Amino acid sequence: MKIDHHIQESLIVRPQNSSPYPVFIQESFSPKGKIFLPERENEGSYFLIADSTLPTNILSPFLSDASHHFPKGKKDPHVIWFQGEEKNKNFHSMEPIYESLIQAGADRRSCLLALGGGVIGDLCGFVAASLFRGIDFIQIPTTLLAAVDASVGGKTGVNLRYGKNMIGSFHHPCLIYFNLSCLKSLPLRARIAGFAEMLKHSLLVSNPSVMDQLFCLSPQEDMRESNFQDLKLAIIHSIRIKSEIIAQDEKEKGLRAVLNLGHTTAHALESIYRQNTSDIDGMSHGEAVSRGLVTALLLSRRLKNLSPSYLERIFQKMNEWNLPCDTAGCSAEQVYRHTAYDKKNRRGNSHAKPAYVLLEAPGKPVTDQQIDRSDFHAVWMEQKSRFS
Amino acid sequence: MKIDHHIQESLIVRPQNSSPYPVFIQESFSPKGKIFLPERENEGSYFLIADSTLPTNILSPFLSDASHHFPKGKKDPHVIWFQGEEKNKNFHSMEPIYESLIQAGADRRSCLLALGGGVIGDLCGFVAASLFRGIDFIQIPTTLLAAVDASVGGKTGVNLRYGKNMIGSFHHPCLIYFNLSCLKSLPLRARIAGFAEMLKHSLLVSNPSVMDQLFCLSPQEDMRESNFQDLKLAIIHSIRIKSEIIAQDEKEKGLRAVLNLGHTTAHALESIYRQNTSDIDGMSHGEAVSRGLVTALLLSRRLKNLSPSYLERIFQKMNEWNLPCDTAGCSAEQVYRHTAYDKKNRRGNSHAKPAYVLLEAPGKPVTDQQIDRSDFHAVWMEQKSRFS
Repeated sequence: MKIDHHIQESLIVRPQNSSPYPVFIQESFSPKGKIFLPERENEGSYFLIADSTLPTNILSPFLSDASHHFPKGKKDPHVIWFQGEEKNKNFHSMEPIYESLIQAGADRRSCLLALGGGVIGDLCGFVAASLFRGIDFIQIPTTLLAAVDASVGGKTGVNLRYGKNMIGSFHHPCLIYFNLSCLKSLPLRARIAGFAEMLKHSLLVSNPSVMDQLFCLSPQEDMRESNFQDLKLAIIHSIRIKSEIIAQDEKEKGLRAVLNLGHTTAHALESIYRQNTSDIDGMSHGEAVSRGLVTALLLSRRLKNLSPSYLERIFQKMNEWNLPCDTAGCSAEQVYRHTAYDKKNRRGNSHAKPAYVLLEAPGKPVTDQQIDRSDFHAVWMEQKSRFS
Repeated sequence: MKIDHHIQESLIVRPQNSSPYPVFIQESFSPKGKIFLPERENEGSYFLIADSTLPTNILSPFLSDASHHFPKGKKDPHVIWFQGEEKNKNFHSMEPIYESLIQAGADRRSCLLALGGGVIGDLCGFVAASLFRGIDFIQIPTTLLAAVDASVGGKTGVNLRYGKNMIGSFHHPCLIYFNLSCLKSLPLRARIAGFAEMLKHSLLVSNPSVMDQLFCLSPQEDMRESNFQDLKLAIIHSIRIKSEIIAQDEKEKGLRAVLNLGHTTAHALESIYRQNTSDIDGMSHGEAVSRGLVTALLLSRRLKNLSPSYLERIFQKMNEWNLPCDTAGCSAEQVYRHTAYDKKNRRGNSHAKPAYVLLEAPGKPVTDQQIDRSDFHAVWMEQKSRFS
């Protein structure tokens, strides 16, 4: 695929064993006539899968920018609408998408465009991974969380009723395009979730300037173009951290597991919320990660002597940013049981201990730390009393 | 995975960009206590997906050989039964399989065993490719066709109603195990189909001894152990030819397409038979390939001056073997239209020409040969008049 270089890429992701791909981050939609999609040999080979809940002020300029890439002689581009909510990201919702694509004329040389948040990116990525045994796709995240996390690294997948992302594959996009204009209409709650993942990335590297730069920003700030310069830099830092990890371990055989910092508790909370409420979207992934980071930091202080002043600095910023840090009404034992029984260890007996990523020191994560029940209970109590 | 070397592997498949894997071919089920499955670190990590139509004389010795690899304390091993017919190899039949595996305790370290013909291998391979973003699996083909073709090379997938193998991925097994005893109960029609693919492989290499050796055998011969020595050698030759091709081009970007010799017509015939009869298994893949090889050879003589005496030698042997060579009641135009519109070229306009693999000379395939309507009609007429 020929990449049209009228826009400078912000960085290039180089996975360990897959082709590298550029990330383009733009501060606004392009002036009329300027487009971001690369030219492809076969005309009209783009097919768009778009979140049907996207506001018009994202959708319209995007479609206007991209429309002349869609097949000629068609009144409308090939758009498949999908309601981008976690509860719809299921295996059985995929068959109609494959069928729509084939009916619209998709073939092995086609390229899918995933326009939406992480749900759309994960689902569309797995469609691209499996249709005709794999076709190209482009990630066009519209949320901060998807831009800094889900769109990068090639993890694609859908849920089964037994758990999130149980079915999927590693399939990298050939390009990531993020337009900061999307943030203008992003609800505060969703911006907060994005900051939780950016915070997580900054905890994984020992270069203090990454965190310093992030801590100058705030999800509460108005998403105006005048603020975009700094935010863009923070997003690039964040993607680069993830990118450098997958350059060494693409398929989570080892190092990549550090990206699960905060996620052991987060997955348990999401799972408990799914079981207890009819609203699967009751706790967003970012909100669960935010709470999980607090747990991981408290465990790291207790078991790895992570500096209390480092923790305080982070907790203070999380408080300023309004990131949720509480225990969300869940008991220690409820969470501990869920974490002891995760998808990596399904046959775990009742004595199995959950595995956490902890920090030995700022920017020094260690994976696969088995946590005793008593330590978890103590830390969860502390989290509850401090942040409730 | 630790491979238990009490059996010598027959050959090793080395895909271009994936891990190599051994092929074990045994002439009978092992004496009591001898087993073929490699030891795995985590006990009880094997899960079997088996064709429910397999005869007891295959199933019983296999289960007896393998049973102590299944989880202890269970009365029966974890077996998921699946009726291995093409019409069941669908996307929507996968979800219950994932769910059965998870209920039975499968996790990321589990390994699936695909026991059956090509349908089971393709389906189970895609389940393994997509469950937890990819787990190990072992191909245990029980038909000659699956042993020499489908089980080798990492193509996995299922059908959509729009066509065969439209959804899938490249995911290699970690081992292939073929027990020649399976052939004892294989119907003649299925043995003939296996010989069609072995013939195809022998047409792709210029070493005449491969074909000479194959031509000494016959699908009509009794499948007795005394005949297995020569058959085993022919199977190894056949797998090695495919293996050497995927060592150079794993994902069909170029060279691997030579394996489609005979398949352009074959896919059209299978598709026409699916549309016209309620019995999707009305024409087996091997029978369609046999007819397609005749078409490809006649086209090669017409357009590439392939030697007539070479053709005659092959046609004579196909006749001896009872391989179907006729046009199966399909008209030239019916087949031509289907071939012009295949999954690689769905948006092809009405002037699109089908792409064939032809032979420039014995063992010298050339891919992507556009065939004119008039040439196809002439050749199809010849095939019809000669073989009907």
